[in-house]
Amino acid sequence: MNPKLDTVDHVAIAVQDIQPAIDWYRSNFQCELLYQDATWALLRFANIKLALVSPSQHPPHLGFFRPDAAVFGALTGHRDGTKSVYINDPAGNLVEILQSE
Amino acid sequence: MNPKLDTVDHVAIAVQDIQPAIDWYRSNFQCELLYQDATWALLRFANIKLALVSPSQHPPHLGFFRPDAAVFGALTGHRDGTKSVYINDPAGNLVEILQSE
Repeated sequence: MNPKLDTVDHVAIAVQDIQPAIDWYRSNFQCELLYQDATWALLRFANIKLALVSPSQHPPHLGFFRPDAAVFGALTGHRDGTKSVYINDPAGNLVEILQSE
Repeated sequence: MNPKLDTVDHVAIAVQDIQPAIDWYRSNFQCELLYQDATWALLRFANIKLALVSPSQHPPHLGFFRPDAAVFGALTGHRDGTKSVYINDPAGNLVEILQSE
């Protein structure tokens, strides 16, 4: 870990069916299931979290921590206590900027 | 870092134009440019590498380290010394399994 570089909190990838995807990742990799419901799941790996998302409910994206997240736009609070804003990179990829502590 | 969990080495996302994407990520985040050519670039963040790939040349994917990568299929050596195999998750997402040291 290089403290001078920013951290990627999570990657959210699209899966049509949540449960088979959870089962596959858990059977093939050492990871922890942090959360699941019918529309998405969250897995913890050693260095990052992987979200498996139903794309009709939750768009795939990358989530970055920044100490100055509000510079990117108005922050929205989430139920887990985090605050973030969603923007697009120049290629149209969705990027979430999370306020770091 | 939890040593019992597997590590995600890199995430490769699609960008149509490499240079504007590099410029955007470097201007918005603390990251290091490790490599670039006309078809892809590699950025280092604190905990993971982010590849920006021209999807017609390099498919978007997630790259995981595993001590038993060969279990997933025949490994191919790359110019940087790594060995890996590409497979699909049940949702069709491309996953690269890299042999860990």
